[in-house]
Amino acid sequence: MGITLVVNTGSSSKKYALYRGGREVLYMTVTRETNEVRCSVRKNGTWLGDEVINDKEYIASIKRLLAAAHKYGCLDEANPITGVVVRVVAPGSQFNSHQRIDDAYLESLRAAVPAAPLHVPAAVTEIETLQTVLPDVPLMAASDSAFHASKPVMAARYSIARSDTEDLDVRRFGYHGLSVQSVVRRIHAVTGKNPGRIIVAHIGSGVSITAIKDGKSIDTTMGFAPGSGLVMASRAGDLDAGALLELMRRKSMGINDAYTYLHTRGGLQGMAGEADFRHVLERHAKGEEDAVQALQIFSYQVKKQLGAMMAILGGVDCLVLTATAAERSPVLRAMCVQGLESLGLELDSDKNEEHVSREGVISISNAPTKIVVMKTDEMGEMQRIATES
Amino acid sequence: MGITLVVNTGSSSKKYALYRGGREVLYMTVTRETNEVRCSVRKNGTWLGDEVINDKEYIASIKRLLAAAHKYGCLDEANPITGVVVRVVAPGSQFNSHQRIDDAYLESLRAAVPAAPLHVPAAVTEIETLQTVLPDVPLMAASDSAFHASKPVMAARYSIARSDTEDLDVRRFGYHGLSVQSVVRRIHAVTGKNPGRIIVAHIGSGVSITAIKDGKSIDTTMGFAPGSGLVMASRAGDLDAGALLELMRRKSMGINDAYTYLHTRGGLQGMAGEADFRHVLERHAKGEEDAVQALQIFSYQVKKQLGAMMAILGGVDCLVLTATAAERSPVLRAMCVQGLESLGLELDSDKNEEHVSREGVISISNAPTKIVVMKTDEMGEMQRIATES
Repeated sequence: MGITLVVNTGSSSKKYALYRGGREVLYMTVTRETNEVRCSVRKNGTWLGDEVINDKEYIASIKRLLAAAHKYGCLDEANPITGVVVRVVAPGSQFNSHQRIDDAYLESLRAAVPAAPLHVPAAVTEIETLQTVLPDVPLMAASDSAFHASKPVMAARYSIARSDTEDLDVRRFGYHGLSVQSVVRRIHAVTGKNPGRIIVAHIGSGVSITAIKDGKSIDTTMGFAPGSGLVMASRAGDLDAGALLELMRRKSMGINDAYTYLHTRGGLQGMAGEADFRHVLERHAKGEEDAVQALQIFSYQVKKQLGAMMAILGGVDCLVLTATAAERSPVLRAMCVQGLESLGLELDSDKNEEHVSREGVISISNAPTKIVVMKTDEMGEMQRIATES
Repeated sequence: MGITLVVNTGSSSKKYALYRGGREVLYMTVTRETNEVRCSVRKNGTWLGDEVINDKEYIASIKRLLAAAHKYGCLDEANPITGVVVRVVAPGSQFNSHQRIDDAYLESLRAAVPAAPLHVPAAVTEIETLQTVLPDVPLMAASDSAFHASKPVMAARYSIARSDTEDLDVRRFGYHGLSVQSVVRRIHAVTGKNPGRIIVAHIGSGVSITAIKDGKSIDTTMGFAPGSGLVMASRAGDLDAGALLELMRRKSMGINDAYTYLHTRGGLQGMAGEADFRHVLERHAKGEEDAVQALQIFSYQVKKQLGAMMAILGGVDCLVLTATAAERSPVLRAMCVQGLESLGLELDSDKNEEHVSREGVISISNAPTKIVVMKTDEMGEMQRIATES
């Protein structure tokens, strides 16, 4: 039976998974931490422990995955890899759909490196490695923007000259599309219906809010850059463009420095000195000022964007809170909707407490808007793209 | 009786007014148009006609005002100028209050030129001229940000390092404070009460939305730069910082070029090729594509910000539409609230049509939110600051 390999590279981590008949059989993460690189493997849903690996092994971690797959009997002659899919986060209309990776696509992706220097290079390197290691297997790009390609022009265009929009392709592409699509696909299972108006708040190390009408994205907080929109773990979100110019002037930053600043020195990292929601939440619980303020600013911006998306949807039937930080932390979820009762958003505090890394409804009974916790499944969504293509 | 001189300089226009006992006695505008500079004078509310003047006369237009004042009997020995007030639009905590202009203040203002090169220089030049022409009269700065100084930290801080917030003073200052304050001060006269939760949408060549709770600004769409927030006549509003970096890279723009681009090549100017709301509305009425799209994008962003401000206010009692474009155009007003019925905002279309440059309530009877048209009065507000200081 054919096996699908799913590859999801971030700037400092990678996730691999093998799927057989739509089910995950092997999963591996490799994560660069401050002093080491850590590799963890899960087989049929059971974690098999961690290993510390070196930098060279990080780059070639696909080989480690394949070795593990053979060792654990997930791959053999009767069950070969028949498709590979890689997540692509890149600004540009040409990356706005899922597609087969050929030479022309890879060339475009290389050309997009200067526009997104912290996101695109890892994908390019990984694709090159995959082409060497699995030269005969078809390779797909799963676009993280494709789900948002349905946005109307009002949500896709900046107020700049038409020529700059069209010739330079500077538009609001949006990201987190794979995550949001995976949630929308399964919402019926959690809520018992397919609501017409959905807002998905993805709160992981990246953070975004998407408005969905009749199953389609009509707006999202991320624009051209993956660091735009809301306050994130280490991305600044919507710092106004004029404020960025002042920071560049005062700190003598060039374009690349400024990009790195926006994407690594903002958000919780900038305000509280560390990017991990869990740690900042722990410090918040102790009343530490920087952590309290960082989470106040974070949740304030979330609330404003919930209001903005409700305005354009004309109300909302279901608010989904998803991705690691939202799935795990009732405290964080409460911060994000507190005070929005007048808009119809109200948590049942007991239900909220009960749902830690568990899916379900957490709003009060008969609330105008159902609030639910759902697990995002980017990897499963990518697997589907590879097998359905 | 003492006369107060009120001076309001923009990047390509100036307004002067003389007030006696709180009443405007003389008003003069000088405006740079494409091929000429036009000067108009109003005495006790009656326009006395236009004159074309030259560039040198534009710079020294205060002398023209004083000559007209003497000619029309508004100034004489018994009625001298006893106070001058100048509007200051400048980013920086030191410009966040109304204050007497002394050497130290003027020096700070000169130092702020690089941070706001299209707004600060005109004020500096005008202040220098006033100091020469009226050396013995006390000179006040009316801060366009002061009204927003009450904003809580969540609405004032970007998600960047505390050191960059504090040492570089890169914060969300907000502007249009004089306009918004003038409206809030008189809202009782139009609505019959002082609503607890107000949103003021200022739609002139600059555009902003401010949330006011119990008379105080709690948030506003403009941040560090006067070009941030909403789509304006020629300012781009919230283009994400990463998108700006891409434009700088592709168009080889430096920091100053980028500032100019954001503040003069965006908004209606960028999208429809001209900055005047009246002209773009006329082209919209004819169905011209660029104009239709520009106004769709403009009003879409207005709606999102109305929703965002309602979320943080917990609902809104009164929405005020003010400044030239909003005061004059029922069509524009309708675009800005259409589809927001679920949030309690609904226009009475007859009342809306009837209010052209006229104050009054334009929402349906018994609507949860009263929508009103009000005239802004920056000049009157400045006069008050000068006489009450």
